[in-house]
Amino acid sequence: MKFDELLMIPGPVQVHSRILNAMAKPLIGHRTPEFSDIMKNCTLGLKELFGTDGDVYLISGSGTAGMEAAISSFSKVSRITCIDNGKFGDRLCRIASRYTEVDALRFEWGESIDLEKVKESLENGSEAVAFVHNETSTGILNPAREIAKIAKKHSALVIMDGITSVGGDEVKMDEWGIDVAIVGSQKCLGIPPGLAAVAVNERAWEFYNEKAPFYLDLMAYKKKLKDWQTPYTPAVPLFVALNEAIEMIKEEGLENRIQRHRKFSRAVREWAVNAGLELFPRLNEYSSYSNTVTAIKMPEGITDKELRGTLKQEYSITISGGQEHLKGKIFRIGTMGNIGKREVVATLMAVEDILTRKGCAVPAINHALEVLK
Amino acid sequence: MKFDELLMIPGPVQVHSRILNAMAKPLIGHRTPEFSDIMKNCTLGLKELFGTDGDVYLISGSGTAGMEAAISSFSKVSRITCIDNGKFGDRLCRIASRYTEVDALRFEWGESIDLEKVKESLENGSEAVAFVHNETSTGILNPAREIAKIAKKHSALVIMDGITSVGGDEVKMDEWGIDVAIVGSQKCLGIPPGLAAVAVNERAWEFYNEKAPFYLDLMAYKKKLKDWQTPYTPAVPLFVALNEAIEMIKEEGLENRIQRHRKFSRAVREWAVNAGLELFPRLNEYSSYSNTVTAIKMPEGITDKELRGTLKQEYSITISGGQEHLKGKIFRIGTMGNIGKREVVATLMAVEDILTRKGCAVPAINHALEVLK
Repeated sequence: MKFDELLMIPGPVQVHSRILNAMAKPLIGHRTPEFSDIMKNCTLGLKELFGTDGDVYLISGSGTAGMEAAISSFSKVSRITCIDNGKFGDRLCRIASRYTEVDALRFEWGESIDLEKVKESLENGSEAVAFVHNETSTGILNPAREIAKIAKKHSALVIMDGITSVGGDEVKMDEWGIDVAIVGSQKCLGIPPGLAAVAVNERAWEFYNEKAPFYLDLMAYKKKLKDWQTPYTPAVPLFVALNEAIEMIKEEGLENRIQRHRKFSRAVREWAVNAGLELFPRLNEYSSYSNTVTAIKMPEGITDKELRGTLKQEYSITISGGQEHLKGKIFRIGTMGNIGKREVVATLMAVEDILTRKGCAVPAINHALEVLK
Repeated sequence: MKFDELLMIPGPVQVHSRILNAMAKPLIGHRTPEFSDIMKNCTLGLKELFGTDGDVYLISGSGTAGMEAAISSFSKVSRITCIDNGKFGDRLCRIASRYTEVDALRFEWGESIDLEKVKESLENGSEAVAFVHNETSTGILNPAREIAKIAKKHSALVIMDGITSVGGDEVKMDEWGIDVAIVGSQKCLGIPPGLAAVAVNERAWEFYNEKAPFYLDLMAYKKKLKDWQTPYTPAVPLFVALNEAIEMIKEEGLENRIQRHRKFSRAVREWAVNAGLELFPRLNEYSSYSNTVTAIKMPEGITDKELRGTLKQEYSITISGGQEHLKGKIFRIGTMGNIGKREVVATLMAVEDILTRKGCAVPAINHALEVLK
């Protein structure tokens, strides 16, 4: 028998039945007051998750579309500093280089960001900084507040990829001094992929580049937002799903939600180190472990295929491997979105079962239970 | 009581329960063999609908994203001729002007394309032509085969917006000589909005522009297609929906599907002219009425708000008004996707009821029934 899968990857995440059912409702037209009500509700809800009084624009497309909309629309700068300490930092650099000169600050994947390098880059004339808040490829949480603080001293524009932090971890755009931030639908918000949101404060428009791609030009989204509409036909079922997700977040309470995400990832880390495994990120005083995904070094004696293949075959659970040159070297457990203690415990117990059978770990589930109780 | 709406607009269309139910299944990971199977099935199915042996790339985003992907990726030309005889032709011009010089051939909305002008533009050195096959804003079907024939004489690249024709009307890319064509998910394919597909033949790559936007650069999609994967996280539920839609199209048979669309739009036209109404498009010997949407002049004695508002309030049916300067001057009835005779008759009967009550039309439903029998 083929059982339903449990997705414990850093997005797309498991989707709650309430959200699946919302998507299955008969379609409504997008140029209707009903759709505008949904759009308004989604926008206002997202503003709270971003921690901003600015606008939030909803783009039908993946997180990468949101990143490119943000960077291309606000690229009227002579140079932008892009911080790369993982796959998504690298992607920021590649996107930005299509629109302006890039000073790419590259750190080994898994390393923390050296803030001195950021300072230097800005002193050398960069007018903007782009970085990834929660780098899922390595399981590291980059120091958003500190980066923004340095940027502000140089009046630089600050663009933050919050694709895998917004809605699951603390994000305070206005308080921290972030001008533009992006979230993806299939991460902490708990809905399927296909929707991105870009939060933008007033100041960002000083950097507006009217040569952004037509589909990703945020000015068109800004104009339509006044009527709670999108410039191009939106992915309606995903908006309906987001509307339900926002409702669920309100019911849970944002602070409770953040604490739940933190507890779940702490449970994964406590389990891992006590099972004799090693966490992948190398922290410095400013960085921390991601609160939404945990990257663990693959132990000797088992291959990626054996671990993840058996997990899927025996338990119908999907976790992630490493990306690019980290393939086979790490595995990653996502703890994002609308999942409970049950999913976390089932996943850790199953991974532990497979690792201990191969002699690659020792039992440590009690350490997770201790955190989760 | 609030009844379920019936969408009789030129997209997004009414979505069949089989497709809604497919979308509501628990989410699967996108980097899995299960997803690749779906992607393969969708791609091969779409190739048949486009009538091509070329590749088909699936982009999470609206039809406009697909149009921009096509134009920006294949814009290595000194000049492109963009044909504009409606809202979407105008959009083509606006997108193309971001990437290369545009010779915009503008015709009044509702007018047919003058092929002599196309010929002249190509003789004057344009290296590509972009046009809309089925212009939903005016209800006209532009002569794709003839435009391509002229372009081929000048070895020009041919890009066709088939967003509202592919899957509902005849499209034969390879036979006609179309190099690049686009379809949107929420039109004749019958699934919700949020997905676009771009069909591309080998020759188009001679015009490849590597400076296309990152998210819309079709080279990235081409590279991933070999593994039946997408470069960025896809809108998984919409792929699952498309998979179901392709299955339904196979069951119906493409030829039957095209005949059904033609019959339904003919029924709308027969009803309209016999009810004393006037069709909006002004045809020439090369153009024809759209087979997926009918544009009708708003008769004297009733406003757009009265007609469409009452229709929605009394009958829970949504049809479209005119766009831009055609607001209030026409109304449009879509007959796309997975709808039956019941929906067409209900819509015409309801519109007739409202118009005759205001003395703006005479009963003519029998003329529609005659076509539909």
